[in-house]
Amino acid sequence: MMSATGNPTVGIVMGSASDWPVMSQAARILGEFGVPYDAKVLSAHRNPEGLTEWLSSMLAGGMQVVIAGAGGAAHLPGVCASKVPVPVLGVPMMTDATSGLDSLLSIAQMPKGVPVGTLAIGKAGAINAGLLAVQILALSDEALMATWTQYRADQRKTPSDVPPMPGT
Amino acid sequence: MMSATGNPTVGIVMGSASDWPVMSQAARILGEFGVPYDAKVLSAHRNPEGLTEWLSSMLAGGMQVVIAGAGGAAHLPGVCASKVPVPVLGVPMMTDATSGLDSLLSIAQMPKGVPVGTLAIGKAGAINAGLLAVQILALSDEALMATWTQYRADQRKTPSDVPPMPGT
Amino acid sequence: MMSATGNPTVGIVMGSASDWPVMSQAARILGEFGVPYDAKVLSAHRNPEGLTEWLSSMLAGGMQVVIAGAGGAAHLPGVCASKVPVPVLGVPMMTDATSGLDSLLSIAQMPKGVPVGTLAIGKAGAINAGLLAVQILALSDEALMATWTQYRADQRKTPSDVPPMPGT
Amino acid sequence: MMSATGNPTVGIVMGSASDWPVMSQAARILGEFGVPYDAKVLSAHRNPEGLTEWLSSMLAGGMQVVIAGAGGAAHLPGVCASKVPVPVLGVPMMTDATSGLDSLLSIAQMPKGVPVGTLAIGKAGAINAGLLAVQILALSDEALMATWTQYRADQRKTPSDVPPMPGT
Amino acid sequence: MMSATGNPTVGIVMGSASDWPVMSQAARILGEFGVPYDAKVLSAHRNPEGLTEWLSSMLAGGMQVVIAGAGGAAHLPGVCASKVPVPVLGVPMMTDATSGLDSLLSIAQMPKGVPVGTLAIGKAGAINAGLLAVQILALSDEALMATWTQYRADQRKTPSDVPPMPGT
Amino acid sequence: MMSATGNPTVGIVMGSASDWPVMSQAARILGEFGVPYDAKVLSAHRNPEGLTEWLSSMLAGGMQVVIAGAGGAAHLPGVCASKVPVPVLGVPMMTDATSGLDSLLSIAQMPKGVPVGTLAIGKAGAINAGLLAVQILALSDEALMATWTQYRADQRKTPSDVPPMPGT
Amino acid sequence: MMSATGNPTVGIVMGSASDWPVMSQAARILGEFGVPYDAKVLSAHRNPEGLTEWLSSMLAGGMQVVIAGAGGAAHLPGVCASKVPVPVLGVPMMTDATSGLDSLLSIAQMPKGVPVGTLAIGKAGAINAGLLAVQILALSDEALMATWTQYRADQRKTPSDVPPMPGT
Amino acid sequence: MMSATGNPTVGIVMGSASDWPVMSQAARILGEFGVPYDAKVLSAHRNPEGLTEWLSSMLAGGMQVVIAGAGGAAHLPGVCASKVPVPVLGVPMMTDATSGLDSLLSIAQMPKGVPVGTLAIGKAGAINAGLLAVQILALSDEALMATWTQYRADQRKTPSDVPPMPGT
Repeated sequence: MMSATGNPTVGIVMGSASDWPVMSQAARILGEFGVPYDAKVLSAHRNPEGLTEWLSSMLAGGMQVVIAGAGGAAHLPGVCASKVPVPVLGVPMMTDATSGLDSLLSIAQMPKGVPVGTLAIGKAGAINAGLLAVQILALSDEALMATWTQYRADQRKTPSDVPPMPGT
Repeated sequence: MMSATGNPTVGIVMGSASDWPVMSQAARILGEFGVPYDAKVLSAHRNPEGLTEWLSSMLAGGMQVVIAGAGGAAHLPGVCASKVPVPVLGVPMMTDATSGLDSLLSIAQMPKGVPVGTLAIGKAGAINAGLLAVQILALSDEALMATWTQYRADQRKTPSDVPPMPGT
Repeated sequence: MMSATGNPTVGIVMGSASDWPVMSQAARILGEFGVPYDAKVLSAHRNPEGLTEWLSSMLAGGMQVVIAGAGGAAHLPGVCASKVPVPVLGVPMMTDATSGLDSLLSIAQMPKGVPVGTLAIGKAGAINAGLLAVQILALSDEALMATWTQYRADQRKTPSDVPPMPGT
Repeated sequence: MMSATGNPTVGIVMGSASDWPVMSQAARILGEFGVPYDAKVLSAHRNPEGLTEWLSSMLAGGMQVVIAGAGGAAHLPGVCASKVPVPVLGVPMMTDATSGLDSLLSIAQMPKGVPVGTLAIGKAGAINAGLLAVQILALSDEALMATWTQYRADQRKTPSDVPPMPGT
Repeated sequence: MMSATGNPTVGIVMGSASDWPVMSQAARILGEFGVPYDAKVLSAHRNPEGLTEWLSSMLAGGMQVVIAGAGGAAHLPGVCASKVPVPVLGVPMMTDATSGLDSLLSIAQMPKGVPVGTLAIGKAGAINAGLLAVQILALSDEALMATWTQYRADQRKTPSDVPPMPGT
Repeated sequence: MMSATGNPTVGIVMGSASDWPVMSQAARILGEFGVPYDAKVLSAHRNPEGLTEWLSSMLAGGMQVVIAGAGGAAHLPGVCASKVPVPVLGVPMMTDATSGLDSLLSIAQMPKGVPVGTLAIGKAGAINAGLLAVQILALSDEALMATWTQYRADQRKTPSDVPPMPGT
Repeated sequence: MMSATGNPTVGIVMGSASDWPVMSQAARILGEFGVPYDAKVLSAHRNPEGLTEWLSSMLAGGMQVVIAGAGGAAHLPGVCASKVPVPVLGVPMMTDATSGLDSLLSIAQMPKGVPVGTLAIGKAGAINAGLLAVQILALSDEALMATWTQYRADQRKTPSDVPPMPGT
Repeated sequence: MMSATGNPTVGIVMGSASDWPVMSQAARILGEFGVPYDAKVLSAHRNPEGLTEWLSSMLAGGMQVVIAGAGGAAHLPGVCASKVPVPVLGVPMMTDATSGLDSLLSIAQMPKGVPVGTLAIGKAGAINAGLLAVQILALSDEALMATWTQYRADQRKTPSDVPPMPGT
């Protein structure tokens, strides 16, 4: 899964520093699974050159998956997908106006030829982007697949009793 | 409004040749007002380098306004806006899924710092993109402003009688 | 860009004084770029005559761009566009009901013949209306174009490092 | 209900001649109830002066209700409501993009102070605008109230048997 | 406008006591214009018989307009319209889920034959329902028409200066 | 499940004869399962008295489930639910405007105290209303439960091979 | 209604413990009507085997109705419906993104053959799921039907006076 | 990428045979890239056991990616994701009601812990699911990566000239 040099296998990028409380959930998941990553704030619109440079250097270092989060007219995942050959996963940010529908549609509705694997709006989406990256990397990393299989098994152990009746 | 060399003053660009029946309405308006334009099919996602080159050469030739049309996760207008200093007008294409709402939101909801002046979904939007480009260029072209003012006055002359009652 | 008399080049108008915290962002941008403006609260519905008078006097004074903000059944930008020959930019206000979709659709979906360049819902839209006005005015004002080009270049210098991991 | 001069009691206005197949349903209802009306095509955006003139002359002639139909950024009903003291009823046109939601929101979501009584999208809305006008006029016209009461009673007589089972 | 007995001319009804903070705006407007009204909480679903009785007794007392407010699957205005011959105005309540769109659609989208004049979602809608009732009653009450005309004229006098720039 | 008299156990009601091509799917399902039903066209708005009478007579005859289909401001299921003690299932009709969302929201979003079990928009919803009625009746009818269990088992036998590749 | 063993007649299941404040409303209703139930937290996605086991054991114990609540891509009700022969009622949870529309659509829009009776989004839906379960069980339990009929009659006794005018 | 036995590396599954015209686009892409696949029609709701068996046997045979397409309450991708450790890609089908929004939301809005990489609604989404599967498999298959890189390069060669002006 990871180059001998210890370079990051996953690149996490977001359009604004204000996306970090959400996108850090993807980073946290990767950390838990021991997947090295690098995370940057790079707007597809305000700094397209900076984005291109970072993607190139990450690819050169062995990046195998990109996780991109953005809100509103959320072009960042699509722009990444147009620039790298490796899988790009998109996380729509929750927005006030239109309740995140703008982010979801502008990430999911990519035209044919340039796929973005889109996750849910907000924190659940960021967590799942991390997990889907793990699933992708685990296809060629038996140890990671074992860790992931265990993680899934642990999910099944959540206690199923309901909390006390509210107000009693 | 137009460089001495007769170079195009307006660049019209769309993500797919199938957008031309709509986007040609903008071209038709510019033609009626005598504004020179160039129109190209260049996907922001499938051919970002080709787009960058065309925008650069158009700017070098004196382009003053960009009209960009795209559908679905419609990033083309925003990508243009991130690359040129001149005003960019966006035309959302009608789509089957979500009835054009995806196109509208992914063009209109641009983040601060990178404006796109968004018009209506579909043909009305393409016509109005042409007219708004005319309005912008007319600010420094008295003859064009006179033509535009006459065009507006002519709109007022539409007959106001209703057609015959249907079925009679 | 600006008449010798120092008259306002941009007119900012909004339907309600409660829109000012948002619309003042457009004013702030214009102030930063040294573009003279006048801002008024004039409802298209409650005071159509007052609106018409202000628009006329602003045009007489050299106004070249209108920025109009409104919410709900947001007719103000369209009414302005039906009354002045210069470009009109529309800013949809965020609303509780329908999360701003009403404002966006009733500004963006203008019929052919009467264009409004629509920006994003809320503060980002107001900022971008100011910047798009700057872009339009800069087409015939080299100094303003240079300031705008520098502004764009400065955007690219935003640091790209993510904040510290939350909770650590 | 109707002035001694036989002048129209209801004014029907629409933004485009293409709205007539829908709006003629309101006219048909008024005809059935013997309510005199005048119908015009007058765009709030393309011909605001023509609209103002027609409304003034209709008011002078005794108009008591306005029925206004429009689609997309449907400002016509609201503009009428800002110009006349009598009740204004709005009919949202069906649109391709957003399936008529744009028309509905830009008519219904009027700000406080300028009411428009909004009916359903499309033909049902036009019919009901005619009927609501009848209800309003019938408040001071006993004969019309009697006709309306009979019309409502007749609705109750619709046969309630289902058609034959399809495909048998 | 009002019967010699001083009976209420307008009936205000809402589905839940929690709608009163909104619907009281309609009552306040009627009070300002001196229009007598009665206001009740009567659910179309939980107490259809109580609703029918109240509507009958109000009609017997001379009620000329009904203002009905409801949220969610908001059937109350339509149920009123199916039971009384006089005009019914509907006010959609703001809801958490779907941001009031459920209320708006289930009031506005009435089938042909049973009109409801629908106002905006929430407080603006309640205020405008009061004003539209005034407009309807004023058609046969010259004093009320004069008061309404003055009210409209006063709206035009709102000062148009913007508040101080925020943060300065 | 069925009274000794052979009276209908399920009442199917719809707002318009044009709903029958959809609602007949529920009837067809009930027929296949041998559940006696009666189907009527009765508008909640245009003929509330007729609806009340039919519901009363059906209840007297032993009706145990109501299936109600309606479109737009679809009040029929909710009105039924306010009048009968037995379970009411609602089928939202597909509509042009808003693509059936109006029907779904005005059936599903019923207030507390008056439940309607809502099915999918259109034919799938009508079929499923028939099946859910069967499930409810089968709770106290072992033969019907056996038939239903067999029906479910048969669903599992659908061949799972895909059709030939299109265009080959 | 209830097996001689006192086993639960209704199974309440939800995807997350955070759904309990809403879903406990269904439990509260069942408690009020003396209907025995069991409530569990079992995710259709994270613990499908646990869900299958619980459903099987509940069925063996005499469960006659399932009430399932879930949010977002809310598959739990549908998964239950694919596994048990008895009626399944679905409660869509309110969500931040898309304001609960995702939950509603992914529960209501079930394909033909696998019905879920869907209630309103949030607490009203949970209450109504409890009441609809009572209605279903009451079809073969005369005492429960009598209690339910009384409950409905009590609803009609809600006082119909409005609260004091706000701010006075 | 592919097991020595020539077993399918990608499993394509859809809820209904009517989804095949869309989902066959994913199959066509995999065929073009020489990626072995198996395609089946297996409803998550009507045949959950059949689905589980097929997924198990595919995993045993070396399946590395699942592509699942479904419409309406589209649970199939999520159910697959809850049953296999390998990446699952979801394709929302276009639907009449709600224009595909139901499919998109019920695939994309998966809860944390069970990711589905969602593509666009309809054919573009199916094509992109095929391409994203190729990207994932290419991470450990240099020949496939080279083919993919060439495919992307070929996309850039699309001619950029617009078609002839319509109507000329």
